[in-house]
Formats: sequence, structure tokens, C-alpha cells
Amino acid sequence: MPPTRIEDPEDPRLDDYRALTDPALRKRYEAQRGVFIVESPLAVEALVASPHAPATRSLLVGERRLERMAPAVDALEALGVAVYTAPAAVLEATAGFALHRGVVASVTRPAPADPGALLAGARCALAVEGVNDHENLGGLFRTAAAFGVEAVVLDPTCADPWYRRSVRVSMGHVLGVPHARAERWPGLLADAATAGWDVVALTPGAPALLHELPPAGPSGRTLVVVGAEGPGLTAEALAADGVRPVRIAMAPGVDSLNVTTAAGVALAHLRSPTLT
Amino acid sequence: MPPTRIEDPEDPRLDDYRALTDPALRKRYEAQRGVFIVESPLAVEALVASPHAPATRSLLVGERRLERMAPAVDALEALGVAVYTAPAAVLEATAGFALHRGVVASVTRPAPADPGALLAGARCALAVEGVNDHENLGGLFRTAAAFGVEAVVLDPTCADPWYRRSVRVSMGHVLGVPHARAERWPGLLADAATAGWDVVALTPGAPALLHELPPAGPSGRTLVVVGAEGPGLTAEALAADGVRPVRIAMAPGVDSLNVTTAAGVALAHLRSPTLT
Repeated sequence: MPPTRIEDPEDPRLDDYRALTDPALRKRYEAQRGVFIVESPLAVEALVASPHAPATRSLLVGERRLERMAPAVDALEALGVAVYTAPAAVLEATAGFALHRGVVASVTRPAPADPGALLAGARCALAVEGVNDHENLGGLFRTAAAFGVEAVVLDPTCADPWYRRSVRVSMGHVLGVPHARAERWPGLLADAATAGWDVVALTPGAPALLHELPPAGPSGRTLVVVGAEGPGLTAEALAADGVRPVRIAMAPGVDSLNVTTAAGVALAHLRSPTLT
Repeated sequence: MPPTRIEDPEDPRLDDYRALTDPALRKRYEAQRGVFIVESPLAVEALVASPHAPATRSLLVGERRLERMAPAVDALEALGVAVYTAPAAVLEATAGFALHRGVVASVTRPAPADPGALLAGARCALAVEGVNDHENLGGLFRTAAAFGVEAVVLDPTCADPWYRRSVRVSMGHVLGVPHARAERWPGLLADAATAGWDVVALTPGAPALLHELPPAGPSGRTLVVVGAEGPGLTAEALAADGVRPVRIAMAPGVDSLNVTTAAGVALAHLRSPTLT
């Protein structure tokens, strides 16, 4: 079935996609309606392959993207999802900007997951504190997926990983890597250590060096903890029971890395023997 | 001496800072005038500490940034650099956008460096092929600085590392890490291998695993080679004499990392024993 063509930017079927460039408005709107937005061909393809595909409310494909997106359109239509297409000018009038990538989906937000339950089923996890930059958060999910992270746990102050930009920068991996927000923080880190996780927290001030830690064996459970660029991890997180602070060896006079790069370096060192 | 206050956006002393949001226009303009732009307090502070400080043509500081930038202003005035200040509205009318960070410097471009000469004096280097995203290029310089890279060599198709956005995302490290564009590519990689460099090229298709390579000893010379996200390194670069293709171990079904993260993982593995 061909997608339904929409010519009127005021069509209520486009309501989920309005004012995408206004973060404050979108924050309220998405919370109210319980939706999130998946943007770009690659992220929509990841949506189709993810457990969230049946929760898709609608897909909006610019005319010029119909050919590339045909398999995704078919897969979502088979799930009963409404698929719309519109000329570029209508997309722009709706979204508030030239939707260069020309493909967006609206998806129902899942119920919040329980971080303890996510960790119980995982061997490799990433805990994130205070990262409020959506691009960095998205980058962390992309890196997490690459290194086999099975659960991402966010502290109460992290930004929303379901935010459009975060989903896009993650290359859609926000949809594939299970994640949850921890209410007890940093208590969750201490709990994980008690449960047998090797809890490794990155901080430039630690005497211990990451590369001197032995990588995880096949039965090891590794929880890497990273904080916001600039302030880094809080003293409370670093002092939680069982947390092992380590630093990445760097050149003299340089004391910070992008948080995504830092997480990648730690995960690669600790988890490479368990990967292929 | 207090900075010279400029009230007229048409003042010719602001010419270096016009239309900063128009990449095509800036590209022509900066080539013609032989300048590059350093934006943000942090990057301007890196400029002051770098060998490029005496090449600064002028510094423009928004009124609200004068206090934070006072040491940089003093240091540049001591070098005879003209320092201007202007109200936010004048900055915006000149640059073409709300210059949130409120600090920009214009600097004379250095003469092109010779990549062979840069490598001759280095023990750790990064070669970059086909990266035309300014943010990724800036991220690579930030990561390079963190892991003690002493020379960055760019192939002929890479974007301009002196472009404003690249300098800013690098946290100013484009100013501190020597770099040069190679005309002979990938011949330069083969030359480096002949000269005793361990030339390690990252590509997802390689059978050999990065983490199984021994890290560099104290006398080792490591040249890490990375390509653009998506296409990756060209077959020509991977086949150059003496180049050792390796891949980063990843989870099944994931085959790419952000290029900055990939470079960080490789540099951390190969160089950590030489760092502190």
C-alpha cells in the first residue's frame, strides 16, 4: 500500500512532528503525549529492527526518501503503522526546519525500566552520571553498542536519551541497548559491586591506571562509570562502596577526553577479550 | 590598556569576523586573507599558550566575557595584538549569529608544514584519510593531544583543520598538535613504515585484532591511520607497503565506531605504557 500523501501542514496526523527545533516545547509535548522522535534513515532502520518497532505511532517520509526507505515502510505497514509522505515544503512547515534527512517516526515511550532488573541480566554495563548534552549521550549509546554493553544506567541528572538528537547521534542504538534511570544514586553502584560487578569509575584524579587493570575474563561482570565532561564524576559516586576509581593514561598537561572516547577506551580495554 | 570599544558593525577592524556562519563564503575569505578563526574562551586560551599566539591578528571579546578573558587579553596585548570589545548586538550583526561564547580571535595561517619533517621528529603520530566533517576532525585533534600524538598528517581529501568549528571542537588542540597535509598519499604511509614506524590502520574488515598487538615499548614509533566514517580507509591506503590493518573487537552486528572513539581506543592501547 502506498503511503498516505499529506498536503496540508496543519493536518492533525502530523501533530507529533511539530516544532522539532524547539527543545523546551518538545520536552513538554513529548512528556504529555508519551512519545519520542526517531530521525534519519539510519535511525529509523534501527527502529524497525528494534523491540520498539510495534510501538511506532507513525512514520513520515519525505518524497525523495521513499525509495531508500521502502523496506522500512513495508515492515512498519506490516505492523499496522500509519505511513505518511509529504512534499519537502510541508515537512519543513511542520517540523520547523528543512528536514534534510527527510525521515521521522513517532514512537510511544516505553514504561520506565528497572535498573536493577536490567543489571541482573547483563555482564557488561555502562553507568552515566550528569551527562546533559544530548550528542554526548547519543555517542555513549553508539559506543556502548559497539562494545557489547547490555545495559545503560543513567543517574537522575542525565539528559533524556529518547530526545531526537540523542537517538540520531546514537545511530539508533538508544533503541537497541536497554537503559534505565536509577533513582538510588550512587547507591546503585554500591549494590552492583556487592552483587559481584567490577565497578570501574573513570576520573582523571585516580592514582590507579586503567591499562594496568586486567581485562575481564569470560565470566567477569564489568560496570564502567563515566561522568559529565568538565566536572567529571561526583565525589559521592567515586566514594560509593566497591567503586574502583581509575584514570586513563594521558600526555602531560592534558586532563580530559570527550566522555564518549573515554568510555570507549575503558570498554575496549576491559571487554575486548570477550568480543570478536 | 582597556580593549578598544567598537560600536559600528561596519567598522573595517571587524572584517575578519564577518559571516562566520557561511562556510562556503568563509572558505574563500579565509584562503584569500590567509587567516583562521579561533572561537570560544577555551580555544582562545589555548591560542595564547600555543606557538601561534604571535600570529594573532586581533581578538574580539564580547563585553560580558571581558572579566573571564582578562589574562588572555593581557597576554595578547603584550604581544602587540589589537584587542576589541563590542556589545552583543554588534557581535551578532558582524558574525551573523548570536556569538554565545562571545570570544573570537583571527590568526594568520602558518605556511604549510612538511609532513615528512613533522614525522622525523615524532614518536607517535596520527594519519587521517577522507575525514571531511569538521567536528570529527576537531575531535581527532583533542584525542590526539590526550594520547601524546606529536604529529597529525592529513591526506589531500580531509577537511581544513583550521576551520572555526574544527578548532573549537578540538578544545584548541588544533593549535597545539603540529599537523600537515600529505601530497603523496598513501605513499607517505609506506615511507613511514620503511623509516621504522609501526603503521597500524583501523578497518573493520581486518582479520587481526588491535588488542592482540603488543603496545609500543619506550623506543617504539606508532603511526595510527584512520579513515572517514562510513567508507573507512581506501583499499589503496590499506594496501600500502608496510601498513598493518587491524580491527577493533566489537559486539556481533556492530561494525562501526565514531572515528574519534576508534582513534582513542587504538592510541590508548598502543601508547598507554609510554604515557602517565
